[in-house]
Amino acid sequence: MSNLQNDLFIRALLKQNVERTPVWMMRQAGRYLPEYRQVRGKAGSFMQLCTNPELACEVTLQPVDRFGFDAAILFSDILTIPDAMGLGLSFAEGEGPQFARPLRTADDVHNLPIPDPETELRYVMDAVRLIKARLLGRAPLIGFSGSPWTLATYMVEGRSSKNFQLVKGMLFEQPLLMHELLDKLAQSVAAYLNAQIAAGADAVMVFDTWGGVLSHDAYPEFSLRYARQVRQLLNTHRDGRRIPAILFTKGGGLWLEAMAETGYEALGLDWQTSIGAARARVGDKVALQGNMDPVTLYASPDVIRGHVAKILHDYGQGSGHVFNLGHGILPDIDPEHVRAMVEAVRELSPQYHV
Amino acid sequence: MSNLQNDLFIRALLKQNVERTPVWMMRQAGRYLPEYRQVRGKAGSFMQLCTNPELACEVTLQPVDRFGFDAAILFSDILTIPDAMGLGLSFAEGEGPQFARPLRTADDVHNLPIPDPETELRYVMDAVRLIKARLLGRAPLIGFSGSPWTLATYMVEGRSSKNFQLVKGMLFEQPLLMHELLDKLAQSVAAYLNAQIAAGADAVMVFDTWGGVLSHDAYPEFSLRYARQVRQLLNTHRDGRRIPAILFTKGGGLWLEAMAETGYEALGLDWQTSIGAARARVGDKVALQGNMDPVTLYASPDVIRGHVAKILHDYGQGSGHVFNLGHGILPDIDPEHVRAMVEAVRELSPQYHV
Repeated sequence: MSNLQNDLFIRALLKQNVERTPVWMMRQAGRYLPEYRQVRGKAGSFMQLCTNPELACEVTLQPVDRFGFDAAILFSDILTIPDAMGLGLSFAEGEGPQFARPLRTADDVHNLPIPDPETELRYVMDAVRLIKARLLGRAPLIGFSGSPWTLATYMVEGRSSKNFQLVKGMLFEQPLLMHELLDKLAQSVAAYLNAQIAAGADAVMVFDTWGGVLSHDAYPEFSLRYARQVRQLLNTHRDGRRIPAILFTKGGGLWLEAMAETGYEALGLDWQTSIGAARARVGDKVALQGNMDPVTLYASPDVIRGHVAKILHDYGQGSGHVFNLGHGILPDIDPEHVRAMVEAVRELSPQYHV
Repeated sequence: MSNLQNDLFIRALLKQNVERTPVWMMRQAGRYLPEYRQVRGKAGSFMQLCTNPELACEVTLQPVDRFGFDAAILFSDILTIPDAMGLGLSFAEGEGPQFARPLRTADDVHNLPIPDPETELRYVMDAVRLIKARLLGRAPLIGFSGSPWTLATYMVEGRSSKNFQLVKGMLFEQPLLMHELLDKLAQSVAAYLNAQIAAGADAVMVFDTWGGVLSHDAYPEFSLRYARQVRQLLNTHRDGRRIPAILFTKGGGLWLEAMAETGYEALGLDWQTSIGAARARVGDKVALQGNMDPVTLYASPDVIRGHVAKILHDYGQGSGHVFNLGHGILPDIDPEHVRAMVEAVRELSPQYHV
């Protein structure tokens, strides 16, 4: 089927039989790893690390080398698209992302270009190609993007937000303008992910980090609708091989049924949701990825092992589960605790695939 | 039944017939009101305002005077209990609450006293008595407390937290110690609320602000169990009159069924949850309070009115709905926008009570 020596992750997303549950971690290439901090130190700024294919490749491979994760995920940022649109992304130390030119007027939205990934985001595609070459089929490579709604929150607010006053203000007062913005973003995200697929990504994931701040009636109209549009525009195959897509809305546990109707092969779950209950609600339609509370990794290896066992048991027999955290790993976790999690998944999961 | 001239709020909580839907707002006595900022300015610190019954009474009554809300809520802080336990509460400007002596060891937990509300928290009871005297029955008075779990998060972390690493660490590694702490807090919260009821509170509300950060299996064990214990210890009547209790877990929309089994007369809802869907899930057991997104109040009065109409329609015919925001009002809202919300509820809700 492919040149992948380990395609557990892809098979689990497609609900094909697997010998054990595959495992990877959101933000697995990150600050908790000393070898990451070393590369980060020599890169200069965070954006210099993101935009340097050689270094992005190096940190992408680190956690695969160290832990043998069943998937690699492109090292990049969710805000590369708005940066390529001209908003001027930077990261102030300890402050998170900032845009020099946030969207303030209707003309700002009208004038937004849809970036050509192979030119304006070439550094990402170069990283994907380099990672694929260096992975040598050891694990599938996940490409990713922020969701249209999540990108819009940063583009309108200009930075991380607590109450999302500006972007919700646009949503309430100028819904047509918001729809124009989200449609442009959906086209841009789809083009970006399709370019990553063409460059070698074996699966893609859409991070709707801020979908959960919307109300129950705004979420389907302003977030989910555009996640669906992205999925409809995505290439589903490369060289005859299925490229599955994962949708993750942090805080979206109430809306899983609607999320499962959008064409994504899998849904990411945070730790508020029981993965067993989620499977009962939507498991015939999609695979599920998650969902250990990232804070669990501060606990002792024995406690971690117990939590892994509970989640595997909660999901139960059969394929369709990708083990992961419910959100990104925190920066001061002991890497040996990650190893305890990975080993527990390897040792405890085969019994659910007999 | 009582000396209340307006008992719409109490009747709605008890699902008795009402002529229209009652309305109040979480944090209605707060910084968005110029008259509040004036009193706050002369009080000195935030804690000096909380601990001065005369001033606490004054700001409690302000929003009732201005908007004619259908309930007053005691002006206080959710962290008065740990302060009375000796942890040393203060508020750094723009930083939120801090404890000088957070819980760090098992002995810190063993040695925690259960405060006597009429001595260590006398200033709160004096405020309740003064407010009751000055309200003259215009509206019921709501007493409140943080939930045991929510108090524990601040007591262990020492301040507001992003990831709740320390308190979850105790939960994972020392669950018996965490249960000891939560049991003490449940006893303290119940004694505190019972004292508020004795002093004149006509209803009480338990704010489980941080229950939503727990996983689906930790929430029932470490948050809901102790909210239930509080309810079981609460006095349900004063002078032959029912004193209803409201439980609000921010981010608890997935767990409403379990919350509805804890004996509270009503559940608070945030804006992630459709109040109509919530009613279908639990509405035969409890009343529902909520649930407009607080950010909606930045929008124009017409937009606000439209959102009020949608929520009233979503709940539908019959009693059991208290209109509120899904979380506290934000500090820079225009008071005239609050008026638009209140007027819309008054004008649009009678049709649902015919």
